[in-house]
Formats: sequence, C-alpha cells, structure tokens
Amino acid sequence: MEAHRRDGEIVVGGDARQRFHDAHGYGRPLDGNEVALDPVEAAHLLFRGDVAAVDGADFEAFVAGLSGDFGARFLVYADLRARGFYLVPAREGWVDDPPDAGDFVVFERGAGPPDGAVAYALSAVGERTDVPASALGHVALAVADEEGEVTYFVTGRPEPGGGATDEPKATDGTVLADRVLVTEPPEGLYERGFYGQRLGGENGGPDGRPIQLSLVEAAYLAGRGALSVDGGAAAIVERGRAVEGERFDRRLAVYEALRDRGVVPKTGFKFGADFRTYDSVEHVDDLGHSEALVRVLPPGHVFTPRELALDVRLAAGVRKRTLFALTDGEGPIEWLEVGRLTP
Amino acid sequence: MEAHRRDGEIVVGGDARQRFHDAHGYGRPLDGNEVALDPVEAAHLLFRGDVAAVDGADFEAFVAGLSGDFGARFLVYADLRARGFYLVPAREGWVDDPPDAGDFVVFERGAGPPDGAVAYALSAVGERTDVPASALGHVALAVADEEGEVTYFVTGRPEPGGGATDEPKATDGTVLADRVLVTEPPEGLYERGFYGQRLGGENGGPDGRPIQLSLVEAAYLAGRGALSVDGGAAAIVERGRAVEGERFDRRLAVYEALRDRGVVPKTGFKFGADFRTYDSVEHVDDLGHSEALVRVLPPGHVFTPRELALDVRLAAGVRKRTLFALTDGEGPIEWLEVGRLTP
Repeated sequence: MEAHRRDGEIVVGGDARQRFHDAHGYGRPLDGNEVALDPVEAAHLLFRGDVAAVDGADFEAFVAGLSGDFGARFLVYADLRARGFYLVPAREGWVDDPPDAGDFVVFERGAGPPDGAVAYALSAVGERTDVPASALGHVALAVADEEGEVTYFVTGRPEPGGGATDEPKATDGTVLADRVLVTEPPEGLYERGFYGQRLGGENGGPDGRPIQLSLVEAAYLAGRGALSVDGGAAAIVERGRAVEGERFDRRLAVYEALRDRGVVPKTGFKFGADFRTYDSVEHVDDLGHSEALVRVLPPGHVFTPRELALDVRLAAGVRKRTLFALTDGEGPIEWLEVGRLTP
Repeated sequence: MEAHRRDGEIVVGGDARQRFHDAHGYGRPLDGNEVALDPVEAAHLLFRGDVAAVDGADFEAFVAGLSGDFGARFLVYADLRARGFYLVPAREGWVDDPPDAGDFVVFERGAGPPDGAVAYALSAVGERTDVPASALGHVALAVADEEGEVTYFVTGRPEPGGGATDEPKATDGTVLADRVLVTEPPEGLYERGFYGQRLGGENGGPDGRPIQLSLVEAAYLAGRGALSVDGGAAAIVERGRAVEGERFDRRLAVYEALRDRGVVPKTGFKFGADFRTYDSVEHVDDLGHSEALVRVLPPGHVFTPRELALDVRLAAGVRKRTLFALTDGEGPIEWLEVGRLTP
C-alpha cells in the first residue's frame, strides 16, 4: 500500500480507515475510507512495513527528507507505541478538544482516539533542544537522547505548604566572612526552629555551644527582629550579595516564601541543590526525611534536557521531589515540579 | 591559660607542650614547653575552652578577626577532630615531609603527629570557593557548606582501561538531523560492538531492523573506515559541530580515547553525564552494570563545589564512579576521578 501527499497532507486510501484508524489509532479520518496521516504516523507505518512508500519514498528516504526535531518526535512516538500506548498529534481531527500545549496526546493504557481517556499531553524533544521553564507545568516531557533512548518527565505547578515552627526568640549574632555566629543561642532556635547548625557538628563539642547560621537564615531572622547584628538585616544582605551576587536575593526570597508557608528549608548542598525542605519539624532529634530538593532559578530560565535529567535522577535516587523556584528576588515566586514518569 | 601573638605566631606556654602537643596533637613544639599554634588550632582550643583567650580575645572575637576561608578551615578541622582524627597544617614543623598541596595532613585513625601514618592530604574550602580541576587528583577535598556541614571528596588520576570489542564490519548510513540511520546493520555492530541502538527500542519492531547511531559513534566508525555516509567522516563531524559546537570535538576525542583503551562508552544522558562506560562487553543481551559516568570538560575547568556535590552524589546513588575527562579535543586527555569520602 502506498501513501501520497495531497494539499499538504499525507493521505492513504484503500482499507486505511478500518485498518489503520479504527483498528490501530493512526490518522485523521477523511471522507470515505481515506485517512490523513501526520508525518510521524506515516514514518511509523513505513517503519512497520504496513505502508510501502510515500510518493515512492521508503522509510529511510522519507525520514531523510524531514528536518528539525522530527527524529526526536518519531523516536518518542515509536517508543510509546512499542510500550502499547496510543498517542496522536495534539491537533483538531486527531483528538477531541486538543490541549493548548504539547506535541502529542497520550491515552490511558487500553484507551485510544478519538474519545478515549487521555493520560497526558506530551512534548517531545531531542536532548539538544532547550526547554523554557514556561513551557512546563501542564505537559509531560519526553526527551530522545543522542542514542534514541527516551526519558520521560512529569511536570506540575504545586503550591508548597507545611506545618509552621515556633516563632524564634530574639538573640545576638556576629557576622563572619560568610556565616553568622550565635554564641549564646536561645533555647529552641536550633532544636525546634531548625535554624542554623551546632558548631563542631552533631558529634562533638560542649553542650549549649554556639550555633552558626547561614546568611539566608540570618537575613530572614534579622528581618523578623529575631536576630541583632552590627548593621542589622541590611548588613547581612549586603554580605550575602558580596559573596553570592544577585543569586543571594533570589535565594532569600525563596527561603522567606517557604518559611512563610510553614516549610523548613535547609541547605541542599550535599545534593547539589539550593535547599532541601521539611514539611514538618517538631524537634531536630526527631527529624523526618526531607521531602523535596529546591533549586532557585531566575525567571525565564531555559533548561537543557541534560540538566533536568541530572536533577530529577538525583532527587529520585534519594526519594525526594524536585522543585524549581523561579524568581527575580521580588514579587511572586513561580513553583515548578519535575519528576520521573515511567509510562 | 592564655595564648599570645609573637613574631607572627600564636604561642602558648605553661604545660602546652605536654598537654596540647604530646597528648592531643596541637601545634609545633618550640624550645622548652612552648608550642606555636596555627590560627585554626588556636580557635579550636578556644572553642573547647582549653585556652581562655588569645591576647585577650575570646573565641568569638578571635574568629571575627580572621578573614577569607578561615571559617571553612575551622569547620573542617573541628569536624574531623570531633570524628576522632588528628590533623595538622600541611607545613614544616607540624608534620615531617609535608605534601605539596592541601591545607591539612590527616592521619590514619589512631595515628598522629609528627610521624604517624598519614591517610591523606586535605584541602578545605567553603561551598562558594571555586576549585580548579588542576588542584585535584592528589588531595582529598573537604567543603564546608553554608550551614557548616562538611562534605568530603577523594580525588585521583586514574588511567581508564577495558577489554576491547571486535573490530566492526563496514556498512552504509544516512545522516539525519542529529543522528545517523543504518538500515541494514552488519551482524554484531550493535549486539557485540554496542554501537548504536535498535530503532523503536528494545521492546518492539521487526527483527534485524535499522539501528541509529549517535553522531559521536558515527564519526568514530567513519574515521576507522567502518561506516560510509555521503561526505564521509568530515560530514558527520561538521554536523556534530553544527548541533553541539566545539563540545562535539571534545566529546569525540574522549569517545575515541575510551574505545582505544578498550572501554565502551554509551550515552550518559539519563544520568546527566556525557557517557556511561562499560569495561567489558561480550553481547548486549548479557550486559553488565556500567561502571563509570564520564563528564567531558574543557582543559582548565574550574569546579564549583556544588557541581562536584551534585555529580558525585548522583554517581554514588547509582553505584558508579565519577570520571572527568579534560580536553580541548586534541592532544592528551587528563583524567580526574572524584568520589565520596566518609572519614
């Protein structure tokens, strides 16, 4: 069976309506028994040997004539088909009520076009295609790597929230190079508020000993009147900018937003992140598992797929969620969650 | 007991020689019972309360008067002391035969200065201090994060090597946008050489079906005369540079070096790396665990500690080594391994 290009579409006739569309979910039905195929569908039917040629071109010649990210879209389509899912282009004619974003609509296992239960809208890209943060949140993302393997991500727009900690008692501190020392911390500042860290680590040193605060912790406490240092909160922010640049303002904004939502942020350094977060802290001696890793990014950040793969893989390995917080340091914070998806 | 500054050193007298140096490994013995203390040792004795003041300054005043990465060095020193290790400044007088690099010499557990068994030389930095790749390879690295917790890394200069695969048989291919299609692959190219990937994934599609090669794989094969495409190897390299820039030359150089050493590199995309590597491949149906993640970097690369934390944490989570390959795409490749160290 051969397909042909007509009016900018790839059309296949014969028993195509029954054989390809009704039985296997390919294409958009035309009048009679004809079906219009998306290039990715045509390539897949050529690959399977169900269609012999498109205007004389076999699989190799057909895909060689297509450009851009076609290879990635084909690899994603073929991968999900091989896993037993139906998916169609996210366009009128292929699916009722197509979504605003995404290249494909993927149906629940066992369901199919045109009106089966939809699992998610899916964007499909190659590993070298940049992905703006603004394009994520309401679609899943499939990335075909250079060897043609496909990695899937689910994305969302969560609202972080947790159970608040006690209001900290006021204390004094000394700004060192890039930390703040509190030699006589008030009872509970560390133990129940989870501010700072006991100097000398958990393992050693005298009881009731000094704690050190990070500059973001100190700036937050000083801003609420709970910490006094020479020069006040402004001196801490100034020091923060001196050692981190404008990234300090963004990190402070996210720290404040999380604390204000009742979530406790602590450094995420060991995980290469800005923060790890605890939704609930009663006492540091009875600390649960931290639930999320937070990365602070400027607004309009554009991800490389490799960056997403690294962050999400690491977070999954330590059983945490990956949360991106986009902010310029002022105004509202945009929260984006990205996780692993296993179709 | 008080210490005093004298001729640029911090000196403590009384029974210091016996009490601090002989019994606990602090300082450099002077004539009589006096001991010269490094600032980090003085700070630790102040912190412990064993020395009351240095020229009248208590712990808080003393550390507030020191600048730069002193905080990080103190936190690392205190952390290892709390874990029960002796460590001393990597300088004449504190240790016999001090190393060329590193801030401290750390002794084996139970050993101590001046002539105990040395475990490693250690550089200590804060999380905001850049670390040139050239400074690593012969020292361990301790990073004090913004909350004062310390993460340790071991570094080395390995020579990768593995058991070679069969020489691939010649074949033809077609360059697509950023991959190469081989519709009639010779037997064993994928299965025993582990070049490319079966199109449509492992799960589906006809037997003996096409494979796709990444551009680095294709450029390597074409360069050895095992793959013919329009325009030859030069056309593949040109395409690679078009989609990846000069990074392509660096990645190709590392791919070639690994193959020439008998190691099989495959994409490391799922781990956010350039390659994952197999030291030995007999057949893809009997593939072992990949041993290492390889990241390709330009010569003279400078790490942020956060980048190291992310890469090493991820690799440890998937039980692989982290290998950095530094190259400008020509000439010898510098191999650097970085792993987790748990003192």
